[in-house]
Amino acid sequence: MLREDVKNTLIKVVGAERYLDRIEELACYGYDSYLEESLPEAVIFPLSTEEVAAILPIAGKHKIPVTARGAGTSVCGAPIPIQKGIVLCFSKMNRVLELNTQDRYAVVEPGVVNGDLQKNLTPLGFFYPPDPGSINISTIGGNVALNAGGPRCLKYGVTMDYVLGMEVVLPSGKVVNLGSKNIKDVTGYKLSALFCGSEGTLGIITKIILRVVPLPETARTIMVSFGNLDNSAQAVSDIIGSGILPVAMELMDKVTISEIEDTLKLGLDTEAEGTLLIEVDGMAETCEREMARIKEKVKEHGAVSLTEAATADDRENLWKARRFAYPVFAKIGPDIITEDVTVPVSQVPSMVRKIREILNKYKVMAGILAHAGDGNMHPLIPVDRSNPEEMAKVHRAIGEIFQAAIPLEGTLSGEHGIGLAKSEYLPLVMDENTREFMTVIKRAVDPDNILNPGKFV
Amino acid sequence: MLREDVKNTLIKVVGAERYLDRIEELACYGYDSYLEESLPEAVIFPLSTEEVAAILPIAGKHKIPVTARGAGTSVCGAPIPIQKGIVLCFSKMNRVLELNTQDRYAVVEPGVVNGDLQKNLTPLGFFYPPDPGSINISTIGGNVALNAGGPRCLKYGVTMDYVLGMEVVLPSGKVVNLGSKNIKDVTGYKLSALFCGSEGTLGIITKIILRVVPLPETARTIMVSFGNLDNSAQAVSDIIGSGILPVAMELMDKVTISEIEDTLKLGLDTEAEGTLLIEVDGMAETCEREMARIKEKVKEHGAVSLTEAATADDRENLWKARRFAYPVFAKIGPDIITEDVTVPVSQVPSMVRKIREILNKYKVMAGILAHAGDGNMHPLIPVDRSNPEEMAKVHRAIGEIFQAAIPLEGTLSGEHGIGLAKSEYLPLVMDENTREFMTVIKRAVDPDNILNPGKFV
Repeated sequence: MLREDVKNTLIKVVGAERYLDRIEELACYGYDSYLEESLPEAVIFPLSTEEVAAILPIAGKHKIPVTARGAGTSVCGAPIPIQKGIVLCFSKMNRVLELNTQDRYAVVEPGVVNGDLQKNLTPLGFFYPPDPGSINISTIGGNVALNAGGPRCLKYGVTMDYVLGMEVVLPSGKVVNLGSKNIKDVTGYKLSALFCGSEGTLGIITKIILRVVPLPETARTIMVSFGNLDNSAQAVSDIIGSGILPVAMELMDKVTISEIEDTLKLGLDTEAEGTLLIEVDGMAETCEREMARIKEKVKEHGAVSLTEAATADDRENLWKARRFAYPVFAKIGPDIITEDVTVPVSQVPSMVRKIREILNKYKVMAGILAHAGDGNMHPLIPVDRSNPEEMAKVHRAIGEIFQAAIPLEGTLSGEHGIGLAKSEYLPLVMDENTREFMTVIKRAVDPDNILNPGKFV
Repeated sequence: MLREDVKNTLIKVVGAERYLDRIEELACYGYDSYLEESLPEAVIFPLSTEEVAAILPIAGKHKIPVTARGAGTSVCGAPIPIQKGIVLCFSKMNRVLELNTQDRYAVVEPGVVNGDLQKNLTPLGFFYPPDPGSINISTIGGNVALNAGGPRCLKYGVTMDYVLGMEVVLPSGKVVNLGSKNIKDVTGYKLSALFCGSEGTLGIITKIILRVVPLPETARTIMVSFGNLDNSAQAVSDIIGSGILPVAMELMDKVTISEIEDTLKLGLDTEAEGTLLIEVDGMAETCEREMARIKEKVKEHGAVSLTEAATADDRENLWKARRFAYPVFAKIGPDIITEDVTVPVSQVPSMVRKIREILNKYKVMAGILAHAGDGNMHPLIPVDRSNPEEMAKVHRAIGEIFQAAIPLEGTLSGEHGIGLAKSEYLPLVMDENTREFMTVIKRAVDPDNILNPGKFV
């Protein structure tokens, strides 16, 4: 609980109905989709930039931590208020302020759900490419703060590639406007990029200008099975190396496919050691030719069966397996760790082998799921966090997976972020000077360390 | 001239042959393609990161300004050492360190010429998309420091979109490694983005990891004339608004075409008030269909003639007019100002009208050249800098052009940067808080203000 006088000052800004501090209310805002929990002392729902600009100096004056929150779908613990204080929850600041397809941008408040933005854009013939697994729940503010990815980022790029500008409230309460609605703009430092992936540690994003793009004319989707996991990974590496750029190229191993089939009964090939879901999009003729080349490639790599979507429903069904991987493994649980190791695509076969070896060595049951086309792998590890022995074993396995990625020039996270999950591993991929440089930036922008303290910086 | 003891310390680092300080030598390093000049006190040609890391603390200790320089093709004065000191010229640190088309990246030293990188990539079936006008002279280090654009950035994006990572020497001499070879990487702040467009004010870039992409299968190019400038601008806005994304869509007005034709005798339509050069690329069928739609659109907007390139030579010829615009106007000179105002594409017709009105009002002779598809306009203004009256008049006209861009939500620079040319106009597009925020970052990273001082921050 915050001090009564501080509470009253904050209530003066937002009103009592948007200030929560009863324990049963706070309980909903102390966790995300990672394993830890830490209750805040208060949850505030801002409705405007002005409110945020009024709140931060109050927090600063009393050295109260402030952690921004979207929908809490982060899997790395980024929005967990580990040093308590205030959670600023943006779920009510969720207006789409402007859609301009002529100039190809959208202006949104941070609480807009990614999927809701898509629903606004579809009738206009446009879309916003980044599609994290949480697309129907997670907010644009959270997507930007974590620099979210997703399957189709293989072709289209990640969140940062679509951020043209933003309005940010700095810890001082000062409001800055970074970037503009212009696709090309080189007036001064690219400071909006600094906030992409900053995990709420530098400022509070209150408005975002996003680039949007026309919907492709059509798409084609296939699912391919391989008798050997290595072959499926080699096919991915070869397709990318040959110059084709599918929208998505998702790899699932036998464990993943078996668990999904057990739950969903989709008729998947549970004998396959490796399964690829591959999609291309664009003009019909382009899709035709690209898909023909992809089919040649997967055959060269020993594909044993191939299912092609003939209709939109078929396509939806093929994607269903991939989309349900996370909930299926979460259900095995009781808890789940979704890892996020990334390597250059030529190293995907080696890394997949390594991950499987390490999981076997530690007798950790896990599925391997990957946005394989960009080398981004997600081992899905059901765990019981109340079992310290199991947790210690999984922890060692994960550490070893990261260690294995380093000689392959890989990195700790392709799209999930650092949060609480990976701070300890940061030195594996970032030398001391570079970590210190992050701290220099953090101190300059947030000298009192009130924004999301206790995280990676 | 630097103090003798400082000079000797610096020569100990790089040797006497890579340290210049005779006036006739310095004269070559005090200007770029903007109008001002300021001689440095010494020019040093580093060959390695270690040398740069040794030089910066020496400069810091003696508070000597350090300005990085590539090929000096900047048109905004960014590499002009306005407060003298040391110019670090990267022309000798120009090795392509790694080309990996399988994983789609290149690692280069900052002095690699953009065009030389292209020559290395072409035989491998790849290219690096950003193509500033200076492509055959300018260096990747300079391109990154200025976040350079170019005609094909309409489809492919600007320099920053291709920077995966970099090695930077901070003013302290500490070396930091930002980003990685992984296409997706969200481990910590996106600090490499901070250096894109920072114009040498934050650190010295000593190595760059660039994303490279497969060459398109084919391209198709047309040149279209309009009897009315407004119609040509409307056609651009309409093509983009309809969802087509050409590689390039270049607009030239009558003054530009006439001057080019006078010099080059290419058989251009000098009666046309507006001329568009439009190119699409990709698979043959896609190009065919996109070009068919583009032709419909330009006809709807009253195109009076259309020339289509049938061969690679034809295509080269169509581009020749566009490429020679700058040298043709520079020759009219004796000097030239290349402006760089940008607006959202729907505002291109209004902005083109405004620019022409303002040029007429001040009786300034200038061509209008534009990467019109992304709203990026380059008035080419031949001037005589020794004529103060003329310069004052041109200066007023330019100020008015920027003023005109603001209500259209435009900005000062799409791809040329701020440098010396535009600092005074920065408040037009950036509020005080945001400018102050740039200063906060600058002070944190370069507390002694030794890197390229006297510029926009």
